Amino acid sequence: MAGKNDKTGKVLTMETLNPNIKIMQYAVRGPIVARATQLEKELEKGAKKHFEKVVRANIGDCHATGQKPMTFIRQVVALCTYPDLLMKNPDFPADAKEHAKKLLAGCKGGSIGSYSASSGIDVIRKDIAAYITNRDGHPSDPEDIHLSTGASDGIKSILSLVLTGKLGKDRAGIMIPVPQYPLYTAAIAEFNAFAIPYYLDEDNHWGLDLKELKRAIDTARPECKPRAIVVINPGNPTGQVLTRENIEGIIKFAKQERLFILADEVYQHNVYAAGSKFFSFKKILMELGAGYNNMELASFMSASKGFMGECGYRGGYCEVLNLDPDVKLQYLKSISAKLCPPISGQIVIDVVVSPPKPDDPSYKLFQEEKTEVLSQLAKKAALVTKTFNSIEGVKCNEVQGAMYAFPRIFLPEKAIQAAKEKNQSPDSFYCFQLLEETGICTVPGSGFGEKPGTYHFRTTILPPLAEIEKLLKTFSEFHLKFMKQYK
Amino acid sequence: MAGKNDKTGKVLTMETLNPNIKIMQYAVRGPIVARATQLEKELEKGAKKHFEKVVRANIGDCHATGQKPMTFIRQVVALCTYPDLLMKNPDFPADAKEHAKKLLAGCKGGSIGSYSASSGIDVIRKDIAAYITNRDGHPSDPEDIHLSTGASDGIKSILSLVLTGKLGKDRAGIMIPVPQYPLYTAAIAEFNAFAIPYYLDEDNHWGLDLKELKRAIDTARPECKPRAIVVINPGNPTGQVLTRENIEGIIKFAKQERLFILADEVYQHNVYAAGSKFFSFKKILMELGAGYNNMELASFMSASKGFMGECGYRGGYCEVLNLDPDVKLQYLKSISAKLCPPISGQIVIDVVVSPPKPDDPSYKLFQEEKTEVLSQLAKKAALVTKTFNSIEGVKCNEVQGAMYAFPRIFLPEKAIQAAKEKNQSPDSFYCFQLLEETGICTVPGSGFGEKPGTYHFRTTILPPLAEIEKLLKTFSEFHLKFMKQYK
Repeated sequence: MAGKNDKTGKVLTMETLNPNIKIMQYAVRGPIVARATQLEKELEKGAKKHFEKVVRANIGDCHATGQKPMTFIRQVVALCTYPDLLMKNPDFPADAKEHAKKLLAGCKGGSIGSYSASSGIDVIRKDIAAYITNRDGHPSDPEDIHLSTGASDGIKSILSLVLTGKLGKDRAGIMIPVPQYPLYTAAIAEFNAFAIPYYLDEDNHWGLDLKELKRAIDTARPECKPRAIVVINPGNPTGQVLTRENIEGIIKFAKQERLFILADEVYQHNVYAAGSKFFSFKKILMELGAGYNNMELASFMSASKGFMGECGYRGGYCEVLNLDPDVKLQYLKSISAKLCPPISGQIVIDVVVSPPKPDDPSYKLFQEEKTEVLSQLAKKAALVTKTFNSIEGVKCNEVQGAMYAFPRIFLPEKAIQAAKEKNQSPDSFYCFQLLEETGICTVPGSGFGEKPGTYHFRTTILPPLAEIEKLLKTFSEFHLKFMKQYK
Repeated sequence: MAGKNDKTGKVLTMETLNPNIKIMQYAVRGPIVARATQLEKELEKGAKKHFEKVVRANIGDCHATGQKPMTFIRQVVALCTYPDLLMKNPDFPADAKEHAKKLLAGCKGGSIGSYSASSGIDVIRKDIAAYITNRDGHPSDPEDIHLSTGASDGIKSILSLVLTGKLGKDRAGIMIPVPQYPLYTAAIAEFNAFAIPYYLDEDNHWGLDLKELKRAIDTARPECKPRAIVVINPGNPTGQVLTRENIEGIIKFAKQERLFILADEVYQHNVYAAGSKFFSFKKILMELGAGYNNMELASFMSASKGFMGECGYRGGYCEVLNLDPDVKLQYLKSISAKLCPPISGQIVIDVVVSPPKPDDPSYKLFQEEKTEVLSQLAKKAALVTKTFNSIEGVKCNEVQGAMYAFPRIFLPEKAIQAAKEKNQSPDSFYCFQLLEETGICTVPGSGFGEKPGTYHFRTTILPPLAEIEKLLKTFSEFHLKFMKQYK
């Protein structure tokens, strides 16, 4: 509470601000994105640049890059929003109307303007449980399903349970992959918990090496109380799809170390590579049988990713298994103060988990639209992988799933020095130059974490195929020029 | 980490669970509401009770109790949801179409399925600033407007800024009214901050007595670092509307004690009593002039209350004034990890702040619907006040605004003893009996806080007039019977 506070008369200065907010970072919307926004505004005002528009490859924002909404999803949401359409409008298919009526019957007063229960609308929780049961071949209980405001909100609610309320060495330790989706480090900073990084194995398709998990937890133990492990599968930003064996190993590790498992499975629909298959942690936990099938696990899903990409609705849910009954009551209490997740986001989730069936009028269109999105993504995943690997000084693991490539860039010593002089990480330096020269906005690997001495960036594979082709060409030219400049 | 943990094998037990979650309470969805839900399920299964249905007077959930959505709001949201309707459907009025087109132009890719900036869609921030400028007669800057997932989310984001990251006597102290809306105590518990209760003056229309503010902060100072003051106006659960003089006094107090002001103004449209008028803290701050108009203030608004009552959309915003520029950047970073508030909630907010104008085709209907809701609420506010005061052993301040009555009940000693034997607060005991006997679900005053030795409950004034009349009659009979029983 030093001089500055007194001079400005402000309650909040950089000295008095919550220190956990100060250390928190969220690279996906970090400084490079702020610069991209600035460039866009300059272009709007007629400024001359080397490029005509900024390509926002920094965030998995599907519709922003041209993906069209799924017709059936939007029809159901529109009908629930304005139920007059149920009567007045003959253009809506009968199954959309039926679906809307079923959901409205689950809303208090028949309006999506009412609050739902904090865990979500009952009929939607049942539909989600049926989807999971069908996906895994193991029963799912609607009472274990809790809707959330996007997956992020659900993740934070679960993370907050394992906190210790203590500081220093008594803080909760949360194991997170590196590279990771920066929501985790942001939440851990905000909660004043302790991040235990475990490195994914870049040389082995970003798989999890069990020895590395052991090393990570043993190293961190003097610093914190390890309580939970986060696994992102399919991987963000790394795009790998974990094998069944890998998941088994992780579950056994968590059991041995007594860790709560947080399985971030929001990309479960986004699996492209031949030979890759999504296995949920729930399924493997159940199939490992006694001794494992009573472990605490939370699995997260989102309306923002998959084939629907409805980011703006902030729909999500988690399935939370095997909580101690008293702890479960406490969890329910803790989410009750948030009242409820947005109802329209809940509706989007419902359509995703209970889409039109083969005999329904909307089935064909729904399948066509879904297949189109996913097959385009698969093409782009393959093209991006291939192109990056064809460029000197770039190496990229196969994009097996999710929506991102995370290529490694081998930067010359002179570039690393130049970055140091600008007080930037080498990959930030590289990504900022890429943005300034080409308008392509990516996120530096340092925002996700990486092994010391390695450099990466994350790009989405979302823009339409023709644009991705152009982007890769532009990128390639930039890269070669950059390498030459700093040779 | 005692025996129980070892026996169950669980990571989370009542011993290891985050202690801040354990102490957190949120009465509006507390045990009495759980019992109400149970009773509803029993009734559904054909159980015989003294009543036919549960009346949920516990929560300000407008549409759940029969209020109809505003036509124009839902038309605009439906058009944004399913833009085919812009072309195909002639039933939508031209101004709804124009409004939807304007908002879609503000969405990336023209879809409400895209993320917006974390502070919300630019054009909506501008509309909100224009609304505030017009309301107060003082300019509002769109850069100070930040949309949120309901008001609760915005409140928590601001509260998190003033935390100290420390424990014990170094915790941040937050002044809150008592009685208060329990979101505040819930958030303070979760954040491990320190609540500094100041009592509202029941004998003076629940006004704020400045001497009481001083007493409260002086008492708390050895226990915490006072950083902020929360004021709820119009009051929840207390229904008072603060006078201009009262607001001036609070601002001066905050200045003297160097406190960040959080003004919960979500009921700003809900003012009923003759002679009562809503003044925003922003307006008074500006009009107090130099020395005050640079104070830090956050004012909160919601789509859930007012005449629209769109709780399920989780729309809200705050106007945050006079942040230190560096702190503002940190605040923006802190909300960026949440990505963005739901777009459909943002749209609802936009319509509320920029409704149809006198020459627009939807103007007449919009005004009729709005006036109908607010005039009915005014009637119910007057009726509820009058009826409660006509019952022996009940005393109720005038419901000047908001959506609740918070009558004081004078309970006989025998009832207080009976409650003690059941390990309940006397007003919980009373409210549970009211629920079991009549199906009326209210919230005990102890869930909001009250002066020791006084007892209250909160009821909404939302059910339709005929239902409220019936409810008051049923209540009255219950109360007299209860008083007789425990005399």
